[in-house]
Amino acid sequence: MQNVRFPIRVYWEDTDAGGIVYHANYLKFMERARSDLLRQLGFGQDAQRDRDDGVLFVVASLNINYHRAAKLDDDLEVVTRLEKLGRASLIFEQNIFRGKERITTGKVRIGVIGARSHMPTPIPDDLYEKIRPWAEA
Amino acid sequence: MQNVRFPIRVYWEDTDAGGIVYHANYLKFMERARSDLLRQLGFGQDAQRDRDDGVLFVVASLNINYHRAAKLDDDLEVVTRLEKLGRASLIFEQNIFRGKERITTGKVRIGVIGARSHMPTPIPDDLYEKIRPWAEA
Amino acid sequence: MQNVRFPIRVYWEDTDAGGIVYHANYLKFMERARSDLLRQLGFGQDAQRDRDDGVLFVVASLNINYHRAAKLDDDLEVVTRLEKLGRASLIFEQNIFRGKERITTGKVRIGVIGARSHMPTPIPDDLYEKIRPWAEA
Amino acid sequence: MQNVRFPIRVYWEDTDAGGIVYHANYLKFMERARSDLLRQLGFGQDAQRDRDDGVLFVVASLNINYHRAAKLDDDLEVVTRLEKLGRASLIFEQNIFRGKERITTGKVRIGVIGARSHMPTPIPDDLYEKIRPWAEA
Repeated sequence: MQNVRFPIRVYWEDTDAGGIVYHANYLKFMERARSDLLRQLGFGQDAQRDRDDGVLFVVASLNINYHRAAKLDDDLEVVTRLEKLGRASLIFEQNIFRGKERITTGKVRIGVIGARSHMPTPIPDDLYEKIRPWAEA
Repeated sequence: MQNVRFPIRVYWEDTDAGGIVYHANYLKFMERARSDLLRQLGFGQDAQRDRDDGVLFVVASLNINYHRAAKLDDDLEVVTRLEKLGRASLIFEQNIFRGKERITTGKVRIGVIGARSHMPTPIPDDLYEKIRPWAEA
Repeated sequence: MQNVRFPIRVYWEDTDAGGIVYHANYLKFMERARSDLLRQLGFGQDAQRDRDDGVLFVVASLNINYHRAAKLDDDLEVVTRLEKLGRASLIFEQNIFRGKERITTGKVRIGVIGARSHMPTPIPDDLYEKIRPWAEA
Repeated sequence: MQNVRFPIRVYWEDTDAGGIVYHANYLKFMERARSDLLRQLGFGQDAQRDRDDGVLFVVASLNINYHRAAKLDDDLEVVTRLEKLGRASLIFEQNIFRGKERITTGKVRIGVIGARSHMPTPIPDDLYEKIRPWAEA
């Protein structure tokens, strides 16, 4: 998969009294980028919540390294690459940059669960087929 | 209703790069205090979400004045008074203090809606009877 | 001032277990729109924090009415109008829409304080002159 | 170090439209527990921000596994153990439980930096001496 770039502007809500972005908020930035990818593939997460055969993407594990601190008004970019596509899981590499500077590097494992059952569930075929060629790029 | 006091400790997550509590986060503090009141009355909000006759309490309107700024590590208190109890709505006065100092003053109107219908719904009788004497205190 | 429109996409982080946007998060959306206005006027809030003559814009009071609930993936718009420009304060009307539907209506009074002194301070002349014609539009 | 237990109540603000705690918010719970430990050792983080020789504790890296989902109103416990104490860094193991059920397991590496310099800095001697016996317990 080619890298997909998602822009983030840093607002007051994202910062803390240290004058920098609060560490947990980078996870929100990463999630926005993943949700945007799904939306671009035509996958509406909200609609899935109400369908009997709906699926949800949940974070199964995550690790993140903090290299530099982002600040108020910063113009960041989340760079996302699908590292591995399984039948009921995905692994993303997601790094955050300010220009050329690496702010954080991270890896996120996503599990797919039934919206009703909350049990592990394969990715629906049509979505899987949309993700696959792109994963192989 | 007598004043009900709910303690809040200020953590990094609550602050912003101005070195003070981010203005929207006082609304979270106020909501924690209201949720705690409901819990003390034996009303479990999560259980309501799944019941056909469940009700949810939603904020219909809110106003807040910011008098002083709270800071990291501060020990605050949300002081809540039920100003008015209607059949399908409640009005709370909620002020936040640091010791004797008033940090914010606020007023919140809550509407009651069906968990499924999302339409205005009277407060269930048993809950209403629990709130009433307390509202009159 | 003409209305200024600022787009907001709703992500998981913005929602709560009621399936809708958590009420305090609309305040974040409104703040993003105000910060963006300042940025467009060439006013860098982060730079101000470190200057001896820097100023900060702080929320002095706010009221908000919740008309409808926004949901995950919604495409919203914060519509901001400067209602009143004072020497050390501003009043904004900020309403949030989903298409033609009004989600929230709000009014925010902003005070201007010294970044060091934390005391009320007039808006710097150059910024004031940039805001004024626009306020009168 | 013995395990230190820190209670967390789940409020609406912590949840998302999936009906569960939003994944990034567990990091906030973990941070509250760490801040509370420092406070119990008499270390005031806010005071440090203004001192020339002040130090800040920043997250250098973090990994977390999500085993189960916590829900609204849940009564959780963050169990924290200091795994390693260095001169300018600490490694914490932090697991979150609901009763006996493990919700998340995590490991957090903390770096110590100068409040002014933002450069790596040894833990002040008096704080180090307070942490050490406790780390060895």
